[in-house]
Amino acid sequence: MRREITGFSNPTVKYLRSLRDKKHRKREGVFLAEGLRLLTDARECGHLPKMLVMAGGRDRHPLLDALEADVAAAGGDVIVTTPDILSKITGKDNPQAVAGVFEEFDTSVGSLDRTAASIWLVAQALRDPGNLGTMLRTGDAVGAGGLILIDDCADPFSVEAVRASMGAIFTQRVARASWGEFHGWLRQGDGQLVAASLRDAVPYRSAQYAAPCFVMVGNESQGLPEEYETACDLRVTMPMRGRADSLNAAVAAAVLSYEVLDTLER
Amino acid sequence: MRREITGFSNPTVKYLRSLRDKKHRKREGVFLAEGLRLLTDARECGHLPKMLVMAGGRDRHPLLDALEADVAAAGGDVIVTTPDILSKITGKDNPQAVAGVFEEFDTSVGSLDRTAASIWLVAQALRDPGNLGTMLRTGDAVGAGGLILIDDCADPFSVEAVRASMGAIFTQRVARASWGEFHGWLRQGDGQLVAASLRDAVPYRSAQYAAPCFVMVGNESQGLPEEYETACDLRVTMPMRGRADSLNAAVAAAVLSYEVLDTLER
Repeated sequence: MRREITGFSNPTVKYLRSLRDKKHRKREGVFLAEGLRLLTDARECGHLPKMLVMAGGRDRHPLLDALEADVAAAGGDVIVTTPDILSKITGKDNPQAVAGVFEEFDTSVGSLDRTAASIWLVAQALRDPGNLGTMLRTGDAVGAGGLILIDDCADPFSVEAVRASMGAIFTQRVARASWGEFHGWLRQGDGQLVAASLRDAVPYRSAQYAAPCFVMVGNESQGLPEEYETACDLRVTMPMRGRADSLNAAVAAAVLSYEVLDTLER
Repeated sequence: MRREITGFSNPTVKYLRSLRDKKHRKREGVFLAEGLRLLTDARECGHLPKMLVMAGGRDRHPLLDALEADVAAAGGDVIVTTPDILSKITGKDNPQAVAGVFEEFDTSVGSLDRTAASIWLVAQALRDPGNLGTMLRTGDAVGAGGLILIDDCADPFSVEAVRASMGAIFTQRVARASWGEFHGWLRQGDGQLVAASLRDAVPYRSAQYAAPCFVMVGNESQGLPEEYETACDLRVTMPMRGRADSLNAAVAAAVLSYEVLDTLER
């Protein structure tokens, strides 16, 4: 159904704004994504929003028309509103011309097919949604299967994480599990668990990576718990030529993943 | 001088809070950095704050005592305040126990000694202070000389950039220049300018890097202007196995820098 909304106090606007809050997203089982490019990527990956929200009064774009047609054909809602209201919904001063409400995906680790990719990313207690979205984006770039979130991570369906993922939220699988669940699942099949570590580690450039390779990084300030590092099949070190003893978590995951990609394709 | 401040309306508190604003930082020629570890790193690199702000009523720490003694000996101010006020100053809910006001460094590109390091990072119109701080942190890790900011970048002295740099703001040189200034300076001596690009590029794993190597990344949404890519000595591509055609800017800089580091040390 297509309808126009121009009032800030409209219940649909309140509903949409509430989706910036994790509690409400969880209750509704949906999340917000914004931008024509991202929504087009989603559409091409088979993900249509159940609700499409567009700013009126802009020049039409063929991709936006295609998106609207598909959402309408699938029985979804199309909302036309003002740029100001769209800005309020997405929390951005210069909002994209369009946003969509998507159903959350199945995030159970048991639903992952580990044979679907040679590389998987694993994040433990990652607190920054920007880092999380950046890891999804890197995962897409290295052809990873997805991102597995261990313990208490930031919400991958937050507006910030979805934005930083640049669309990879729709191309990468996302799973959430406790360490015990993940580790139990991992050991039921093939899988090499790798982490950057200072404990009994080998140089990352000469390590023997094997598919499916699970590249794990830890919390931004604490790093990985010792028990998790010990459980890894391979611990690697990266050069640290300066004063710092660690990289940004998303950066470490990327440098390591690109090395794994090169090794596995060699 | 050591003094205690407990009122939010104290002029010093207002001054400190104003430093979260770029305009005020620029006028005063100073910036804020927070955290005992970061301030200790700064001290060990020869940077003492002209004003040290500590939350009272906490357990003393030998490193904090050492910091206070050095600041006092250098004629700096030591302010003891409440955790609430410190929180207001740094804009963080759970503030670090200490913050410092530092003089801004010389950021002229002409003051850089290119022979001091084999790798330099260059960012063009980078808008996200977190990305900028992360690049500084990566620069420290790969032993880079510093980060050169081209055109209209985020402020490297913002609280967010300093925080994300994890202390690298004190170990890396930071320079700011227009493209013309930078390019003119670069061509006055040795220096290989490298960027990730899709134009006439070679695979990043087999490229011939040469020191001093200047690794350049562009704006988060626009990438590098064509003219800047054309001016590079070397254009390299990184594998993109998914739908996305680019990496996060700080991630691209890191993956490329680690490759350059490995090549130059081989």
